[in-house]
Amino acid sequence: MLDQIHLLAAVTVLGVVEQAYFFLQVIYARRMFGISPPKISGPPEFERVFRAQVNSSEYFPIFLAVLWQAGLFFHQGLAAALGLLYICSRYCYFMGYKESSSERLVPLYFSSGVLWILVAASALGILHFFLSHYMGLNFLQLLSV
Amino acid sequence: MLDQIHLLAAVTVLGVVEQAYFFLQVIYARRMFGISPPKISGPPEFERVFRAQVNSSEYFPIFLAVLWQAGLFFHQGLAAALGLLYICSRYCYFMGYKESSSERLVPLYFSSGVLWILVAASALGILHFFLSHYMGLNFLQLLSV
Amino acid sequence: MLDQIHLLAAVTVLGVVEQAYFFLQVIYARRMFGISPPKISGPPEFERVFRAQVNSSEYFPIFLAVLWQAGLFFHQGLAAALGLLYICSRYCYFMGYKESSSERLVPLYFSSGVLWILVAASALGILHFFLSHYMGLNFLQLLSV
Repeated sequence: MLDQIHLLAAVTVLGVVEQAYFFLQVIYARRMFGISPPKISGPPEFERVFRAQVNSSEYFPIFLAVLWQAGLFFHQGLAAALGLLYICSRYCYFMGYKESSSERLVPLYFSSGVLWILVAASALGILHFFLSHYMGLNFLQLLSV
Repeated sequence: MLDQIHLLAAVTVLGVVEQAYFFLQVIYARRMFGISPPKISGPPEFERVFRAQVNSSEYFPIFLAVLWQAGLFFHQGLAAALGLLYICSRYCYFMGYKESSSERLVPLYFSSGVLWILVAASALGILHFFLSHYMGLNFLQLLSV
Repeated sequence: MLDQIHLLAAVTVLGVVEQAYFFLQVIYARRMFGISPPKISGPPEFERVFRAQVNSSEYFPIFLAVLWQAGLFFHQGLAAALGLLYICSRYCYFMGYKESSSERLVPLYFSSGVLWILVAASALGILHFFLSHYMGLNFLQLLSV
């Protein structure tokens, strides 16, 4: 069973390490700007780093959810490759947002695009499974006729 | 293996699409009220939409966690049906909260109720597995005697 | 298959119940200090409880992700035991943060330590799987020679 998920697992752990890196960046920013918890407001430089981390955290479960569905129901290697792309674009998003609000936009749109591809792959894979499981239909066979 | 999780996977992808919809609603609200990131405060109309999205994001991993445990250890079809109910009630919560703080309450309580049923189903299913796996006991057999 | 994940599932459900407890604590704090949603700022006593819940929510998907990878690829029992430790330290974190910002630190560092062990166990387990799957190498055999 593990050979069907080992690439997904590797990408998941890499994603966790990235999240940890973002958390550390917030801790550094809190120290640099002297903003102690539970405060979350401060100069825009701090708030941008803080919001970049919060936004990445909110997207993380969504990312994992579609990564795994796409990997299980569509294609593990493709899902893992898209997962790596997502992790890279989230890094660019974080670094861009740190500099200015506008620099977050391109990597944010890119990472959203990757997520939508994962959603589409998941949906297609699950649909294919439903059709073959309940109706005995097989896309690939139909296409090859 | 996939036939034991395909309903859970379908509900998971549907939940992801709902989360994406909530994110888009925040983007629209930011444009409508002219509140650029990283700012998160503004008129109550904006803050309600923003908080509705944040609250839904916080609950999303919890929802997925119990959806999958209930589906794997109790009954996949029942867990998926409860999952659909949860997704619907989260939609009502979001739309209600957008209108007024008080209109979020009924669907919020309802969605919490669904979550607790999923928690109970997970706990029962896991307990049943522990009893049969470690002690050789079988609830259903005991009941039918 | 379920006997490879039943301990992870039990710890997951316990973690969900803990998150629910944290949500309830925020609701009580909102009532006590008269802070109605969507407001999230107030006296430090309220903001500490609120931030403790938000921080725990942000870490929850990360925790589940490494708990399951460590359990599937390294050792289920060890991962579950570390998971219980994490849940306990998160409880101490929450109760400490409620009292004062400084009292959150020791359990926060402890819980981070547990997470890093889970990350390391996941990474080792996945690396071991990659080496044996793609290169036919086996750590344990090599060590015993």
